[in-house]
Amino acid sequence: MDMRLPQQDLSARYDKVRRRSLALAEPLTDEDCGAQSMPDASPIKWHLAHTTWFFETFILERMEAGFKPFHPAFRVLFNSYYNGIGEKHPRAQRGLLTRPAMAQVRAYRADVDARITRLLAGDLDAEQRAQLAMLVTLGLEHEQQHQELMLTDVKHLLAQSALLPEYMAVPLARAKAPPPMAWLPFAGGLTDIGHQGSGFCFDNELPRHKQYVAPFELASRLVTNGEYLEFIAAGGYFNAALWLAEGWDWVRSQNLNCPIYWQQDEQGQWLEFTLHGAQALDLARPVTHLSLFEADAYAHWAGARLPTEAEWEFAAAQAAVETGTLHPAGAAGTDGLLQMFGHCWQWTSSSYAAYPGYQSAPGALGEYNGKFMMNQYVLRGSSCATPDGHARASYRNFFPAGARWQFTGVRLARLAP
Amino acid sequence: MDMRLPQQDLSARYDKVRRRSLALAEPLTDEDCGAQSMPDASPIKWHLAHTTWFFETFILERMEAGFKPFHPAFRVLFNSYYNGIGEKHPRAQRGLLTRPAMAQVRAYRADVDARITRLLAGDLDAEQRAQLAMLVTLGLEHEQQHQELMLTDVKHLLAQSALLPEYMAVPLARAKAPPPMAWLPFAGGLTDIGHQGSGFCFDNELPRHKQYVAPFELASRLVTNGEYLEFIAAGGYFNAALWLAEGWDWVRSQNLNCPIYWQQDEQGQWLEFTLHGAQALDLARPVTHLSLFEADAYAHWAGARLPTEAEWEFAAAQAAVETGTLHPAGAAGTDGLLQMFGHCWQWTSSSYAAYPGYQSAPGALGEYNGKFMMNQYVLRGSSCATPDGHARASYRNFFPAGARWQFTGVRLARLAP
Amino acid sequence: MDMRLPQQDLSARYDKVRRRSLALAEPLTDEDCGAQSMPDASPIKWHLAHTTWFFETFILERMEAGFKPFHPAFRVLFNSYYNGIGEKHPRAQRGLLTRPAMAQVRAYRADVDARITRLLAGDLDAEQRAQLAMLVTLGLEHEQQHQELMLTDVKHLLAQSALLPEYMAVPLARAKAPPPMAWLPFAGGLTDIGHQGSGFCFDNELPRHKQYVAPFELASRLVTNGEYLEFIAAGGYFNAALWLAEGWDWVRSQNLNCPIYWQQDEQGQWLEFTLHGAQALDLARPVTHLSLFEADAYAHWAGARLPTEAEWEFAAAQAAVETGTLHPAGAAGTDGLLQMFGHCWQWTSSSYAAYPGYQSAPGALGEYNGKFMMNQYVLRGSSCATPDGHARASYRNFFPAGARWQFTGVRLARLAP
Amino acid sequence: MDMRLPQQDLSARYDKVRRRSLALAEPLTDEDCGAQSMPDASPIKWHLAHTTWFFETFILERMEAGFKPFHPAFRVLFNSYYNGIGEKHPRAQRGLLTRPAMAQVRAYRADVDARITRLLAGDLDAEQRAQLAMLVTLGLEHEQQHQELMLTDVKHLLAQSALLPEYMAVPLARAKAPPPMAWLPFAGGLTDIGHQGSGFCFDNELPRHKQYVAPFELASRLVTNGEYLEFIAAGGYFNAALWLAEGWDWVRSQNLNCPIYWQQDEQGQWLEFTLHGAQALDLARPVTHLSLFEADAYAHWAGARLPTEAEWEFAAAQAAVETGTLHPAGAAGTDGLLQMFGHCWQWTSSSYAAYPGYQSAPGALGEYNGKFMMNQYVLRGSSCATPDGHARASYRNFFPAGARWQFTGVRLARLAP
Repeated sequence: MDMRLPQQDLSARYDKVRRRSLALAEPLTDEDCGAQSMPDASPIKWHLAHTTWFFETFILERMEAGFKPFHPAFRVLFNSYYNGIGEKHPRAQRGLLTRPAMAQVRAYRADVDARITRLLAGDLDAEQRAQLAMLVTLGLEHEQQHQELMLTDVKHLLAQSALLPEYMAVPLARAKAPPPMAWLPFAGGLTDIGHQGSGFCFDNELPRHKQYVAPFELASRLVTNGEYLEFIAAGGYFNAALWLAEGWDWVRSQNLNCPIYWQQDEQGQWLEFTLHGAQALDLARPVTHLSLFEADAYAHWAGARLPTEAEWEFAAAQAAVETGTLHPAGAAGTDGLLQMFGHCWQWTSSSYAAYPGYQSAPGALGEYNGKFMMNQYVLRGSSCATPDGHARASYRNFFPAGARWQFTGVRLARLAP
Repeated sequence: MDMRLPQQDLSARYDKVRRRSLALAEPLTDEDCGAQSMPDASPIKWHLAHTTWFFETFILERMEAGFKPFHPAFRVLFNSYYNGIGEKHPRAQRGLLTRPAMAQVRAYRADVDARITRLLAGDLDAEQRAQLAMLVTLGLEHEQQHQELMLTDVKHLLAQSALLPEYMAVPLARAKAPPPMAWLPFAGGLTDIGHQGSGFCFDNELPRHKQYVAPFELASRLVTNGEYLEFIAAGGYFNAALWLAEGWDWVRSQNLNCPIYWQQDEQGQWLEFTLHGAQALDLARPVTHLSLFEADAYAHWAGARLPTEAEWEFAAAQAAVETGTLHPAGAAGTDGLLQMFGHCWQWTSSSYAAYPGYQSAPGALGEYNGKFMMNQYVLRGSSCATPDGHARASYRNFFPAGARWQFTGVRLARLAP
Repeated sequence: MDMRLPQQDLSARYDKVRRRSLALAEPLTDEDCGAQSMPDASPIKWHLAHTTWFFETFILERMEAGFKPFHPAFRVLFNSYYNGIGEKHPRAQRGLLTRPAMAQVRAYRADVDARITRLLAGDLDAEQRAQLAMLVTLGLEHEQQHQELMLTDVKHLLAQSALLPEYMAVPLARAKAPPPMAWLPFAGGLTDIGHQGSGFCFDNELPRHKQYVAPFELASRLVTNGEYLEFIAAGGYFNAALWLAEGWDWVRSQNLNCPIYWQQDEQGQWLEFTLHGAQALDLARPVTHLSLFEADAYAHWAGARLPTEAEWEFAAAQAAVETGTLHPAGAAGTDGLLQMFGHCWQWTSSSYAAYPGYQSAPGALGEYNGKFMMNQYVLRGSSCATPDGHARASYRNFFPAGARWQFTGVRLARLAP
Repeated sequence: MDMRLPQQDLSARYDKVRRRSLALAEPLTDEDCGAQSMPDASPIKWHLAHTTWFFETFILERMEAGFKPFHPAFRVLFNSYYNGIGEKHPRAQRGLLTRPAMAQVRAYRADVDARITRLLAGDLDAEQRAQLAMLVTLGLEHEQQHQELMLTDVKHLLAQSALLPEYMAVPLARAKAPPPMAWLPFAGGLTDIGHQGSGFCFDNELPRHKQYVAPFELASRLVTNGEYLEFIAAGGYFNAALWLAEGWDWVRSQNLNCPIYWQQDEQGQWLEFTLHGAQALDLARPVTHLSLFEADAYAHWAGARLPTEAEWEFAAAQAAVETGTLHPAGAAGTDGLLQMFGHCWQWTSSSYAAYPGYQSAPGALGEYNGKFMMNQYVLRGSSCATPDGHARASYRNFFPAGARWQFTGVRLARLAP
């Protein structure tokens, strides 16, 4: 991760981000917070504890005088994947941690919050202060990543129930009909890719480096549910010629015929399970929860392909320059290039790999990103579940090709004619 | 199950048994009640709901005027294995049922309890009254079986936690040194096996029928932890000659070297996880939580064998006659023959099979016992977790040979010299 | 196994049995002889080598002066399951033993045959001679068991090929229409079960002991293909009420709807793959290659049940007494009780367990039978693949409930009215 | 694949390549040729038939007048993965195809060879002739790929045998001590990557396109067995910090501590199983049979990294220009840059992906390469098992990260200082 100091008041930001995690758990019972619907997902309680463990382990343990852990067993229970820290509770059994109870995890959060706040307000030399600021910032960005996972994990959990419970009581608003999809041309060329500027970024966005991008075209918006339904109607899930070999094995061995949260009722109407409960499929919304296999097959069927991550970043950067915003934020894209952020993470055809000259941090923090650079694919943009201000044009999200429980969609690309 | 009428006041018994299930959940949080530690075990909440479903489905639905289900989805969610009733929620995913919440399940219980109580107090003809009494009795015996499972399942769940939490705050009392094990001779002969008398029994205990039992000897008490420790010290877990072929595969593929809840600390001291938390191993207590594979290997090592179920029942019946108690109850055995009930279920070498002339009930209730009569082995007696008054000499408990999470122990047998 | 001396000329019998194994391999290529179609089956070459290893290990190694193994690696390669002998080549990888080649295995057989023959002709004291006779007899009975497996294993292998090759070029003769099935009554009572007399038997047939058998009726003949087809037509494979719980999981998880070697062609005609190639299903023949699950479901559907092994043996013994043959042989049964031997092994409801007082042999030979006495079920009679003179009324064959590649069929039983 | 016409006499080349496949099977028995040691590997007989099927299906069926298949079942039996052709025999069960026998497969080869030769000598117009030449060339390149697999697959098969049989009777010569490893600098820059010229190439080497390559350094030779042994001695297999997350799971779940064909004898001496049998490990030879996980961990430990495929190709092309050979061949590399070809395939960090503008062929032939472009990594160079003249600087071999049975090694790279 980048080590530069943020400009804002860290203590206030700390407070705000940490409170938001608790707020995300508000609509849920303690029972909801303890369950784990699959090994890829984690219980809400575990997210709340693990993000706290991150601050305790990487800040308090290093910088607090007379440090004592809140509870010695938590070092193991809430370690996600840091071998450099030591033992870990088995990932697939996080749902069995009925103890500590939610109340204890809330107490854990309060205790660590008080100690971090004290540390931030304390007497530190400039170097310590800089290091603290860097680590707190990293911890908050880390917590924001888990905030998105809390939403996707709880959606997956609630979807297992025959009661199809709502996370949010208000219905999801119907989307307005999107403008027709247009092909926007980009000249490409020898370009700089990767994070620039003094703001925070993760280590995997660096170093900024040169890449040659051939001229290409990018779709002006995301593929919609309605468009994806045409792919289904055309037999897309049963046509081997559209799929990668591994995708075809994947789709047939699981006997899939639609996205994970879609189902047809007895009258043939398509319903989609959402955080607002089951609703009639909204044809105008971007299709989401697609695996890379499905995204790639759709693109193939549509006579196009997925963009590379360099193409995506090139387009986003150019659009940002044209509109004067370096980090396009919120649900809007830029003129002509819509839905770049805030709707769905967008699959690219790029395998998640180190940029030339990539350096991971020393010690256990070096495990944050680097060790996952194999058999994962990069997603760009951000989703409706991404916290405000978290993503940016150089941000590299990544998941294995079969992952479907994230808010993942498709923006088409093609070579310039 | 046997259809004869119990003598006692059913309504009071109903109330008492149903309240005990809730009392068993008292020491637990709602989070504890929702988790499922393995497919063989079920969440406490599920036990509370399923036992209620049993009354709702097999009594209210048949006998209540204007029956409406408490919640239509519960018919599927809390059906354990009755194909005759219809669809079932997948067994391995009972831990994902965070909804309905515990509060809803308590409300479900209260509603069904009120309706059953009303039915019992209502105006019925003699045939209806007899049928109702039979079904309520069956439901209560069924609930008592689940009360035992609630304890074994919650023990398995709590054992997964690094915090090793206690279910009961008081420590488990140390056992008194047992008397030396003696071989008690039984003459055998052509004998009657199976339930007799007018009391309740399950269908698998009938019909009472003749079996020839050759003269045999039975150990006067159960094998202790101390004795089992000698088997471990002698390398019992690593000596193929002691094990059945399938047991040897089982023990080596899982790399086992002791009972499921035992572990050695760094000083080599043996600890046992109990419902009272982790404690120093009590050498005087009967060894428990053994699979049939372990029980059989121990018996082989000890130069003995496991009893057949007919031998066990013959001995229990004879002892009962001698002491004037037909259904020995509680922790005590009879003179000379100790620990027959109330300590550990005792593995027999008998495969669980139908008695000659066995008839299962018509309809879905016929699935209660009969369809499990393959690749399971009979256990006799009862355990420390069995509700008072539930077991009897003809009672046939059964589990697959690899099951270890029940309170299962060993009583040795051998052919008469 | 029983240790009594056979009366016949052992050397001639040795020669005859050993030559038959080679004859069974005659219709096959070396390639056929090397392949293993599933872990339960073994390559023909492995059978030829393992039966030789049995003579080498249990006779030559013990009794030959200056014993040297034919090849030191064979001790491991061709050890089936004798932990007392040492390491074993993994069972599922027997098909990868392209070396030693068939020619080497033939040389191995010739070498061991010469040495056994020399030993039989040699100078031995009476005790040695008795022991040798016992061991050679055991080795020959063992080889005959493998001769049956050679046929069932090669049938399974050839069935994997799209070419559906024939093992025997001549077509299988159509069966004559069987007499109608009749229910034959047997009085039962306190009876003796187990082998008697001075002939050879396996250890699991002993000791002869008392059992009480309630009055019962046995079907006069086996269930036919035609009768089983009615069960299929009645939806038997899709009716949960007919199946044991484990059988229902088994049949549905594999999506089965007929016996293993049956298939329907495009015109709906049923074909059966046989050792004579694919043929139109012969409705008059006994249905075979059924699992115990299928056999039990059929019996349930037919309003009957499977016999216990004691019932089967009681009936066979009584019939033998009536007809004056103690060991009914060949394809014929006795008057009224048809097809007891030589057609299909007949599933019983009896779990394979030790007879009271059962003793296995000391040392590695003790692993022959005893260690398999769990989660297996007894079959009685013999099949079309059983060598002449190998089976008898007290013979106990055994397989797990899901085994389908043996020649296994159904004889119905029911309680006397 | 590239569609350009080769210059040489195709008929002679056809004859030569086809005869070499049979020659590779010469040292083997028919039994060896039928076995399949794992799903990733295929029997030699299957390779011989499948390569023939390729000519039959993609040439004879399209271009031969009055085409009739040699055997209708072969279309399914020997289809590897072409969904466009239809059904396929299950990959993991290729070892069960004892029929057709080797003799039949030889006859199949002879028949197809005669018909292809006739077609090549026949009367064709220019367009047909061009198409035939293209398809025959593709078929021969395809067959050469299988020739390499025949050697790696038979090595894996023979390694399963306790007899450790040799494929070649002559011992493998000891290698000369290699020169010290040197870091060779390359300037990089905006460069052209992909096949150029009129010779044959596969479709995945096209189109030639621009890439920017940052300045880098490449090791002058491959990593040796001796160097890799130091990694082992330093505990490399047990140091999580060196491994990618998926690699660490892979190495620990299989409990690996050395390359696949290495083992230590009782004296601690390292042996390596080779096509020449087991031999003392030759420290001077390039280490081979490494997974990408092992290659990457080694590079990490050595303070370096794996090259990208663009870096590798850039270096190879530049060296070729300097030495005047466009396609370096044989065991030698170029001055300074040694062992680029003919020793081991060299893992790169590049995920196997389409070049910008990549087009697969229409129809089933389009499945040759494109559908595998996910979760595979590119290897460059060629190995000791690659047929002469088959590889080139732009050649892209690819395997999943865990593949170990190919001749795969490591050349280190690092960023220019």
